[in-house]
Amino acid sequence: MQDASVGELSEGEILSVILRELGPSAAEVGPGDDAAVLTADDGRVVATVDTLVHGPDFRLAWSGGFDLGWKAAAVNLADIAAMGARPTSLLVALAMPDATRVSFVVDLARGLRAGCEALAPGCVVEGGDLTVSDVLTIAVTALGTLEGRPAVRRSGAQVGDVVAATGRLGDAARGLRLLFDRFRDAAGNPIAVDRSGLTGEEGRELDAQLRPSPHIADGVRAAMAGATAMMDLSDGLVLDAGRMATASGVTLDLHRDALGPHPDDALSGGEDHGLLATFPTTDAVPDGFQVIGVVREYGESPVLVDGARYEGSGGWDPYRDWDASRG
Amino acid sequence: MQDASVGELSEGEILSVILRELGPSAAEVGPGDDAAVLTADDGRVVATVDTLVHGPDFRLAWSGGFDLGWKAAAVNLADIAAMGARPTSLLVALAMPDATRVSFVVDLARGLRAGCEALAPGCVVEGGDLTVSDVLTIAVTALGTLEGRPAVRRSGAQVGDVVAATGRLGDAARGLRLLFDRFRDAAGNPIAVDRSGLTGEEGRELDAQLRPSPHIADGVRAAMAGATAMMDLSDGLVLDAGRMATASGVTLDLHRDALGPHPDDALSGGEDHGLLATFPTTDAVPDGFQVIGVVREYGESPVLVDGARYEGSGGWDPYRDWDASRG
Repeated sequence: MQDASVGELSEGEILSVILRELGPSAAEVGPGDDAAVLTADDGRVVATVDTLVHGPDFRLAWSGGFDLGWKAAAVNLADIAAMGARPTSLLVALAMPDATRVSFVVDLARGLRAGCEALAPGCVVEGGDLTVSDVLTIAVTALGTLEGRPAVRRSGAQVGDVVAATGRLGDAARGLRLLFDRFRDAAGNPIAVDRSGLTGEEGRELDAQLRPSPHIADGVRAAMAGATAMMDLSDGLVLDAGRMATASGVTLDLHRDALGPHPDDALSGGEDHGLLATFPTTDAVPDGFQVIGVVREYGESPVLVDGARYEGSGGWDPYRDWDASRG
Repeated sequence: MQDASVGELSEGEILSVILRELGPSAAEVGPGDDAAVLTADDGRVVATVDTLVHGPDFRLAWSGGFDLGWKAAAVNLADIAAMGARPTSLLVALAMPDATRVSFVVDLARGLRAGCEALAPGCVVEGGDLTVSDVLTIAVTALGTLEGRPAVRRSGAQVGDVVAATGRLGDAARGLRLLFDRFRDAAGNPIAVDRSGLTGEEGRELDAQLRPSPHIADGVRAAMAGATAMMDLSDGLVLDAGRMATASGVTLDLHRDALGPHPDDALSGGEDHGLLATFPTTDAVPDGFQVIGVVREYGESPVLVDGARYEGSGGWDPYRDWDASRG
């Protein structure tokens, strides 16, 4: 059955293949009924949804099922973490072409589980939906708990706060560039990744793109340390910092020297899925975060770099930047 | 801007068009942050996801944006109702081709809102995700509250219970057949629906398919009346009753005479989105439900019709029954 296509199986058969890989439910009602019934300890639930679409979001020559499952989990877990919450469960809506191999689906389920176990232990897939589509599409809903704390919104940054971030900014964008530069054939089509010629740093950049490992627990840590605002860095630092600045009515002034060895990639590269947060003082910034700027009164621009407007590319917008002809 | 395509706008511009149509948030944190923060009054949340995909699930010649938004809400609200819960909020993941018209997106948002207001007042879209895809795909996550009650699972049917259902079973399937029979051109491609030649009954069947109105409040009513098992009728009565019977370890014996004027359509037709439930006695069956059978000890088959195996088609399975060549 491992080599069958999903079109040869019934929905129930595909579902049972997936459920075998997901591990035990932790919920009052887990997969298999019309809906899951999940605990929401403090009388609230944090909820988000994010979709990965074949083409704009991934290429199957570059991403296997395991990587995709892992990434689909990771990007949604990061959105829960960005509220200062702990992820508790996922729902996965999977739309697949008939020709999709069952072995791919098994790998995807394993990646979802492994991503949860590595990044947010205790978070489990508790439900989902299977349907057929010409375009492989993975929509993941993540739910989480604030454990009684207030949510950390993107609108709370205060003048005088320090700006801090987790993770190696720009690595995911550098990984994507590596894929486009080195792993396409003469016609521009994606080809399988051969890691043997990559340096250690290049391998890490590729991982940041294909199988990101955001530090999910840093979200709760930041909330407990008194973060005044927080968000997930998904579309590039300048674009996302601009959203936080606009929501807060302030300007975020970033320090170029604090952005690592490739500051322009850090400023404009998307998909890092680190956390961007503001704290009242430098002393309040918890381990795992690097100070990268300061919050100023709103001035000529929501984002400055070393006090000046940033003239580079601002980040990734799927409706502006995706061009199917790229490969 | 109404006539622009989404590919001409930024993600933020599309989002603001949608948010204008959705009405006010009822949540602690609504749309616009990394995740929504929703109330979960009794310390639990009911959660489900369901996806509508262009092709297998709808044709744009037959369904406008408003109908699609309404249907995407309705089918998910029904899954929440089927647990005995009251829907409280939706998250909507929308993947659209660049060429999608903004006016279509506006209609979709209006349909989502109108479906919630008509079927589950108080339920609001509190978040979502926008992405680009070659195939229009609408994945809706619905959340709900059990208000302190136990969930009504599909596994609780007891020998001697009566079987009951809401809605006009088979109408949605008859509506789909009407579309295939009357609203395709000579090459088999879908064409716009002209209702002028339809009888009142045909119009109602078309509505059941294109803009279903399941009685969502009947789910809570059934739970309060002591329903022992309940589920949403999405894939056809025989197939869904078989799932309830198997989960409960019993046989559901259905009365053909109780299934309305088109019993074979009622038995095998999908997408009715009524509720199938079991109750300890006929007296316990609340208004809105029709008695359609009785629960027996598990025998030769999970589902019987008047005591005999049903030999017709059992229902809809997307991986077995969808054939792109149908039009």
